[in-house]
Amino acid sequence: MKPHENHGDRLSDRLSVEALDALLDLHFPQLRAAGKLIVLETVEADGVHVRLKASDTLLRPGGTVSGPAMFMLADVGIYAAILSIRGEAALQAVTTSLNINFLSRPEPGDLIGRVRLLKVGRRLAVAEVDITAAGGSDLVAHATATYALPPG
Amino acid sequence: MKPHENHGDRLSDRLSVEALDALLDLHFPQLRAAGKLIVLETVEADGVHVRLKASDTLLRPGGTVSGPAMFMLADVGIYAAILSIRGEAALQAVTTSLNINFLSRPEPGDLIGRVRLLKVGRRLAVAEVDITAAGGSDLVAHATATYALPPG
Amino acid sequence: MKPHENHGDRLSDRLSVEALDALLDLHFPQLRAAGKLIVLETVEADGVHVRLKASDTLLRPGGTVSGPAMFMLADVGIYAAILSIRGEAALQAVTTSLNINFLSRPEPGDLIGRVRLLKVGRRLAVAEVDITAAGGSDLVAHATATYALPPG
Amino acid sequence: MKPHENHGDRLSDRLSVEALDALLDLHFPQLRAAGKLIVLETVEADGVHVRLKASDTLLRPGGTVSGPAMFMLADVGIYAAILSIRGEAALQAVTTSLNINFLSRPEPGDLIGRVRLLKVGRRLAVAEVDITAAGGSDLVAHATATYALPPG
Repeated sequence: MKPHENHGDRLSDRLSVEALDALLDLHFPQLRAAGKLIVLETVEADGVHVRLKASDTLLRPGGTVSGPAMFMLADVGIYAAILSIRGEAALQAVTTSLNINFLSRPEPGDLIGRVRLLKVGRRLAVAEVDITAAGGSDLVAHATATYALPPG
Repeated sequence: MKPHENHGDRLSDRLSVEALDALLDLHFPQLRAAGKLIVLETVEADGVHVRLKASDTLLRPGGTVSGPAMFMLADVGIYAAILSIRGEAALQAVTTSLNINFLSRPEPGDLIGRVRLLKVGRRLAVAEVDITAAGGSDLVAHATATYALPPG
Repeated sequence: MKPHENHGDRLSDRLSVEALDALLDLHFPQLRAAGKLIVLETVEADGVHVRLKASDTLLRPGGTVSGPAMFMLADVGIYAAILSIRGEAALQAVTTSLNINFLSRPEPGDLIGRVRLLKVGRRLAVAEVDITAAGGSDLVAHATATYALPPG
Repeated sequence: MKPHENHGDRLSDRLSVEALDALLDLHFPQLRAAGKLIVLETVEADGVHVRLKASDTLLRPGGTVSGPAMFMLADVGIYAAILSIRGEAALQAVTTSLNINFLSRPEPGDLIGRVRLLKVGRRLAVAEVDITAAGGSDLVAHATATYALPPG
């Protein structure tokens, strides 16, 4: 899919990694309070890559990443991907549903979420996320989610 | 559904609220580290009721309960419901998938998760959770999840 | 939940079983072409009950109801439930996502879908469906779906 | 992911397109009764491509492919992908859950389902399916499903 072509967005309108990262700071202050838990790595043509840092103890009981932490990585990653296409007009986007499959237990360490936008429509956006260990290729989890986009 | 009748479990074998709560303490130490975030309220014939306490600041950016916190409430509640039927034999149960719909923005305050077991089979258990504000009747979120049960 | 109270709908505005059934005939001609595959049984305060007839051979390879047939029962049932609240204004509602869990293999015979509306908002409706054998209480399948509602 | 490497399967053990197609004929006789509705196109390293033929009228009310037909394409495609890795040992695999997002209304014509296996474990397999119009690149629908694999 090429979401930005479908909807009149041009690459030149799209936000830089730095601008996106600043928007995430604004929108999810709790992710940054304890140090940056989730970092935007790259912006791709049809999504983004995000990283969950290994340092936080609350998210890693028993040394492994918890389900809620992977949920959060997927949720924040998709939000960032929508902003990368729609810019600040989409700041009020809200998650309406999220489906996650847990596939294998991750090793201790950072996790990478590779977000692919499946649809960015007028009212809804849908995306999927492959979650792997940083440096690994086996899937740890896979999520699909829908966001409602603000009118206008 | 009457899961305990389907699988030879008798009510007299089932765990008390206190015994279940102690198992949750053991299994999810991180839920208890910062004070009890999630409390088991009641054990029903086909599930349990769990409460997410309003006090924790990390889970409530901007005064409202975050998506990951509701994910955790559903996930822990279903785990407790499975233990209420299967007892300690199911301690190694793991979430394989979770689907959550966010329906309305909750008011500040505790949330209640009402877990209903849909199936407790030999290898898989499936349950759903109605999440409301404590004292309210409108749904804030609704989740469905599958757990893989340990063999034997 | 009481969806019609939440949105200014009054019971007196709501469609009768007969009126709803006629709308389903109009909207899903293929369901009726080979005899009525899916029949509206009752309209409840927060949903409807629908029945999948046992007669159709295509839907019942090997004597048991197929997955796609249960998908269709859930999908049509939720559509009917939305119409029961919103009336003809919602005829253009479309399914945006559907999640189904298959819990046990049904005996040959009719299936009943009990639809409960979880939310009927301005832009989205969410509902769940318990599917059982007619006359049975064990769940055969459970579905949750989201419909996008027409603007206005 | 490379499911066959993860689980001791070697490419030389894997089934050919012809052998797989014969197994589908055996397992889903109803798909073939009215002419071949679903055809296996190719077997990939981590999945398969399947095609839903445009000819069947029941599946295409109003000229467009129905939701249940796309459900069936995804379900049969994932089953074929599991057989392509595990062979006849997996014939008794059954769908335990399926989540589908409908993204755009398809043009009349064949649909292609590209199945990617996300995990093929000892007890469960998880896969996703991109559904597009034949010859098109925009997604019409996207599904994720879990199959329970037979023991042994």
